[in-house]
Amino acid sequence: MSEVLRVAMIGHGFMGAAHSQAWRNAPRFFDLPRPVSMDVVVGRDAERAREAAARYGWASSASDWREVVARDDIDLVDICTPGSSHAEIAVAALAAGKHVLCEKPLANTVSEAVAMADAAEEAARRGVFAMTGFTYRRVPAITLAADLVRRGEIGEVRQARAQYLQDWLSDAEAPLTWRLQRDEAGSGALGDIGAHIVDAVQFVTGQTVTTVSGTTRTFVAERPLPSGGRGEVSVDDAALFTGKLSGGGLATFEASRMASGRKNALRFEISGTAGAIAFDLEDLNTLQVFRFADGETAGFRRVLVTEPGHPYVAAWWPPGHLLGYEHGFTHQVVDLVRGIEKGEQPRPSFGDGLWVQRVLAAVERSAADDTRWTSVAESR
Amino acid sequence: MSEVLRVAMIGHGFMGAAHSQAWRNAPRFFDLPRPVSMDVVVGRDAERAREAAARYGWASSASDWREVVARDDIDLVDICTPGSSHAEIAVAALAAGKHVLCEKPLANTVSEAVAMADAAEEAARRGVFAMTGFTYRRVPAITLAADLVRRGEIGEVRQARAQYLQDWLSDAEAPLTWRLQRDEAGSGALGDIGAHIVDAVQFVTGQTVTTVSGTTRTFVAERPLPSGGRGEVSVDDAALFTGKLSGGGLATFEASRMASGRKNALRFEISGTAGAIAFDLEDLNTLQVFRFADGETAGFRRVLVTEPGHPYVAAWWPPGHLLGYEHGFTHQVVDLVRGIEKGEQPRPSFGDGLWVQRVLAAVERSAADDTRWTSVAESR
Amino acid sequence: MSEVLRVAMIGHGFMGAAHSQAWRNAPRFFDLPRPVSMDVVVGRDAERAREAAARYGWASSASDWREVVARDDIDLVDICTPGSSHAEIAVAALAAGKHVLCEKPLANTVSEAVAMADAAEEAARRGVFAMTGFTYRRVPAITLAADLVRRGEIGEVRQARAQYLQDWLSDAEAPLTWRLQRDEAGSGALGDIGAHIVDAVQFVTGQTVTTVSGTTRTFVAERPLPSGGRGEVSVDDAALFTGKLSGGGLATFEASRMASGRKNALRFEISGTAGAIAFDLEDLNTLQVFRFADGETAGFRRVLVTEPGHPYVAAWWPPGHLLGYEHGFTHQVVDLVRGIEKGEQPRPSFGDGLWVQRVLAAVERSAADDTRWTSVAESR
Amino acid sequence: MSEVLRVAMIGHGFMGAAHSQAWRNAPRFFDLPRPVSMDVVVGRDAERAREAAARYGWASSASDWREVVARDDIDLVDICTPGSSHAEIAVAALAAGKHVLCEKPLANTVSEAVAMADAAEEAARRGVFAMTGFTYRRVPAITLAADLVRRGEIGEVRQARAQYLQDWLSDAEAPLTWRLQRDEAGSGALGDIGAHIVDAVQFVTGQTVTTVSGTTRTFVAERPLPSGGRGEVSVDDAALFTGKLSGGGLATFEASRMASGRKNALRFEISGTAGAIAFDLEDLNTLQVFRFADGETAGFRRVLVTEPGHPYVAAWWPPGHLLGYEHGFTHQVVDLVRGIEKGEQPRPSFGDGLWVQRVLAAVERSAADDTRWTSVAESR
Repeated sequence: MSEVLRVAMIGHGFMGAAHSQAWRNAPRFFDLPRPVSMDVVVGRDAERAREAAARYGWASSASDWREVVARDDIDLVDICTPGSSHAEIAVAALAAGKHVLCEKPLANTVSEAVAMADAAEEAARRGVFAMTGFTYRRVPAITLAADLVRRGEIGEVRQARAQYLQDWLSDAEAPLTWRLQRDEAGSGALGDIGAHIVDAVQFVTGQTVTTVSGTTRTFVAERPLPSGGRGEVSVDDAALFTGKLSGGGLATFEASRMASGRKNALRFEISGTAGAIAFDLEDLNTLQVFRFADGETAGFRRVLVTEPGHPYVAAWWPPGHLLGYEHGFTHQVVDLVRGIEKGEQPRPSFGDGLWVQRVLAAVERSAADDTRWTSVAESR
Repeated sequence: MSEVLRVAMIGHGFMGAAHSQAWRNAPRFFDLPRPVSMDVVVGRDAERAREAAARYGWASSASDWREVVARDDIDLVDICTPGSSHAEIAVAALAAGKHVLCEKPLANTVSEAVAMADAAEEAARRGVFAMTGFTYRRVPAITLAADLVRRGEIGEVRQARAQYLQDWLSDAEAPLTWRLQRDEAGSGALGDIGAHIVDAVQFVTGQTVTTVSGTTRTFVAERPLPSGGRGEVSVDDAALFTGKLSGGGLATFEASRMASGRKNALRFEISGTAGAIAFDLEDLNTLQVFRFADGETAGFRRVLVTEPGHPYVAAWWPPGHLLGYEHGFTHQVVDLVRGIEKGEQPRPSFGDGLWVQRVLAAVERSAADDTRWTSVAESR
Repeated sequence: MSEVLRVAMIGHGFMGAAHSQAWRNAPRFFDLPRPVSMDVVVGRDAERAREAAARYGWASSASDWREVVARDDIDLVDICTPGSSHAEIAVAALAAGKHVLCEKPLANTVSEAVAMADAAEEAARRGVFAMTGFTYRRVPAITLAADLVRRGEIGEVRQARAQYLQDWLSDAEAPLTWRLQRDEAGSGALGDIGAHIVDAVQFVTGQTVTTVSGTTRTFVAERPLPSGGRGEVSVDDAALFTGKLSGGGLATFEASRMASGRKNALRFEISGTAGAIAFDLEDLNTLQVFRFADGETAGFRRVLVTEPGHPYVAAWWPPGHLLGYEHGFTHQVVDLVRGIEKGEQPRPSFGDGLWVQRVLAAVERSAADDTRWTSVAESR
Repeated sequence: MSEVLRVAMIGHGFMGAAHSQAWRNAPRFFDLPRPVSMDVVVGRDAERAREAAARYGWASSASDWREVVARDDIDLVDICTPGSSHAEIAVAALAAGKHVLCEKPLANTVSEAVAMADAAEEAARRGVFAMTGFTYRRVPAITLAADLVRRGEIGEVRQARAQYLQDWLSDAEAPLTWRLQRDEAGSGALGDIGAHIVDAVQFVTGQTVTTVSGTTRTFVAERPLPSGGRGEVSVDDAALFTGKLSGGGLATFEASRMASGRKNALRFEISGTAGAIAFDLEDLNTLQVFRFADGETAGFRRVLVTEPGHPYVAAWWPPGHLLGYEHGFTHQVVDLVRGIEKGEQPRPSFGDGLWVQRVLAAVERSAADDTRWTSVAESR
């Protein structure tokens, strides 16, 4: 039980940095049931992988993920590569008996995601677990939101409205990076940030999106290539969709990278029969809570989610001290290790990640079909 | 020119009270180009009309609008009745050479609205003008928003997101009033509050909604009748739709009477290539303005729209003193009288009101057609 | 009982406009126990008084307040002149058996205010009442705040922090009007806006300020005279003081006309043993309420004070519709007329106004005495 | 130059945890000019020190700070003990040629702080540096605020208003810990949180507080002892003071642990001739900036201080990703190491810390002297 959990991380970009911070911090602030060791980081370029190991605190580096996945002395593979390689690595790692943490979106296509979820389900029967990295679930205010809804504090959910607004593409001269090319990125705002709000709404409401009607839009068709000249943007700048929730509610979603003035505004508001909750990632330590039962002085309560009784908070600093973006990654690692130790499937599972992929695919199908209502379950 | 403008008001419910306050206040705070007199208020019940005259400050009362419209000594007819009677009254009044102010929504059906717009267009050629009562256009912050967009302060408009959120139907035991019955109310949240956000987005962006995809929902199917027993709710509780703007932008709309904790939250945010603006009617004296050009200290500016240079404000109180809901009605009357005196069509015209009706009708058609994209111009 | 209450208003500047709006509106929205008639407005310049009568709705005008006060057919005198003339008019009117409404500050000196309060006390024994025009008490959110404190909703009051922040003197080239000259204005920010926060704190906490320590400051010593040249500023730009409350609490006050970016920010926060309330006049329809008893989801509730159960609100518009600056004046008139009819002293009385004057005078004495603690009761 | 900087930390409570996080993170996110090693943590209880070393990442532990300070292989001593021991440790460490980082408040008495500042000044001449741990200076929004003021963006500073509001003592039954006993804690809210707002105002304005007038208050005189029974509270619950700034401005300060509903509200607003800035630690990633030059759309800009051009931000995450409470500690360590490498005195120096102590002592002297204006320079 107290054997060390040896971790390998594949990829060391932005997400690799965030995951490394999580692995370093988890044992410093939380009582993990099992020690972890940051054994190896993997990157295609051996020199850059070596530098990443030094900077991020991994004991060693490697350049071939297949070799690493095959090693007997690795217990968990943390996948931080672009979406196009997720399926191959995850399926191999699970087959090799490694636990897997995989960044979102689970894959670039539904069929890849299906393969991953199948592999995960099979592995789980052997006590080997896979988790999708929707880290925002573990922002304390969002976890608290889900707890409140589950306990019935806002009654039955009727409506959800969710937005993820950024503005880094408002400038028509912003360069055409790989994120704006379909073959590499899969999709644009839809998959990158739309995925987060689909997961958040499903997590907080405890319901799934079953049917969608939506549209996507590319406002700037051509952009300067980093290499010179101009190229065609092949992904969406914004995606707008409406979804039916499995519990009978309605949800609206907007993902945009052209919402001038909004930097990282993942927002949602859930309206229930007895109250409501609202959240904004640009003010991530607070949760707004409304209850009709408050009567004459009912109003959205601005709850600073920094009290010891709030999820995850006690492990960090005294009451009233704010956490940042990165802390959710630590909570994710903590819950993953705890799940592994208890032999319980950590959430979001690959199945959860697959469903988000199906929703995104259904939005694209609806957009291609005159915005008609489109079944999520039928996404392939 | 300085002859008195003699006004008759038909209907004296909530809107009649607000319009009366406007007629009383306009000459006290603004220099009208022509004196106005509040000659007669009309209501079916003679006794209640008499009381309304006394309470609201009309010189006399009457119970037959047809007689009043036929009077030679009336110059302007202000229609504050439910939507089902708008067309008949307005068309008759215009035919009789009276200027008309008509509450929104212009009518309960597109065909009625078409008749009204045709009559108004014909009358305008004779110098007789009709105006639709989308009073929120004249909340100073909204007028300022439109001014800023027209002047290019936020660049080219790409996206609009608009909501009108209320919660008075969250309670499933709230009674089944006439507003929840289709034959009297036309539609539910869609026509009542959705109409306002369609007009607001069109007004502020200076563009029209040309195509929509939408859905409506009734969450509570049966409610207690005021008379006892239960009856079927035949209008929507919420309407969600996406629209294409004539200038190439995309807009999203939500109208809901079940958004727990929101009382009168008419909100919009317009994202442009150079900045953005945002507004919330629950904080109606402020406008949020974002400009990329602010550089390092760019951020939404919370502009208190209470300075003498702001629209309409100088007529009221010194800088920093807040206005309320009712003041927009006064501004509406002021602009109407000024338009009449100048011989210029006041906006929103009946044509503007008709287009909003077409949008609402297109939403219902889309909702009935699997949420498909639906042309607004084809609404009949 | 139902005899008309005939009103004379002395002065017709900014306050005269606001009071006129109140007299006009009160009977339209509230059921007054007695009809009121706006009989005469008085101004030194006969021509301008005539114009004021026409604009503001008074039946006639006059230029000599003494004659008007002596008239048998006047029941109530509403004093809207500068502070230096309050005492003479009010004492004469009360002696003549007229009810009096007097704008704040009650007088320019404590001794004048004492004479007024004495006259009012004597008159009250004859059923003739005097009221000081601290109109902000009747902003619904402030009235609600006082109600909540009185009912013990925030427990025992420990601290109050109050600010009245404006910025119209930030510009060192703003002109030297009469408001910046001691002989006319009495004092600067202290008397003009500091008076409001002293009254607000006393009203909401139900306690009086008994002892103060304070300082005042003139940041810009010379300003351009409207007539050309430059003159010396002889009043304070800002006043800062701490006060002990009669119930054992501590209060801090700041009045400044140089708080850049703040236009009319009358703010207070009251901390009690069980909770707290906070208010800002720049967002006057909301009240922030905190209660420890809310437990895990405790946070300041943003209460939109626009529901029918809230003070004064039901008389106006449906739920969720905002009121503005001017509405408090109407509530003031309503309560005054009701008090007169019931034979009950309306608050704030002249005695209440006198105490505020004593507090302001004590602040100036403390400022002149090295900021030492200074007894309010000893102000003369 | 690239020799390792070997660090010893004395004390491992809340501040020790925060400093450890800083030492661990600094080299992972910033390019330090010199590698650092976390060599030893010191605590009186050897067993607990050992545990702290393991948890916080120190290579070893020790129980006698004198021995550690005497070691040749230690370059820097980081003092995280209670204030009463700061002077002895810091003076010894500086004498031994160690750089020193010392938590605030610098000492419990002015005379101790003087000794420390003298020692630091002497050491600085030898290239050995001491720094006071006012970490909030390095919250990016506060650093940006100071930058903006220094660049003249808000003009000349006239007024500062600062508050540090907490509510953990609102409950009269909260226990009587060492923090509430004068002999151990020195003072209450004044020294603990008041110190922070004095430093913040001085840092952001670039001016010092020269004279103060203030009062302190203990609202709850007796509290339950953790050991049972009740004991007397010998420190203040709240401190209120006004200060004159060296540049001619006025500042107000409030420190309270009884501000119900406020958890960690370190707030300040600086009013200048050309604009203003405002900050709240409960929303620490944003800065409010007002500029008169914004004209018609002037209003406080809500700047999300998460852009690459903002202080410290580029080292962490992409734009729009929030930082938390702890990040300022990392920035502090980074600037300390850089200062040491460059041979430049890092700020705040011990002299800066001493001045804050003098201000606090002057407040207590003023409070004891009927709140009279009291010179800060004369504090001993």
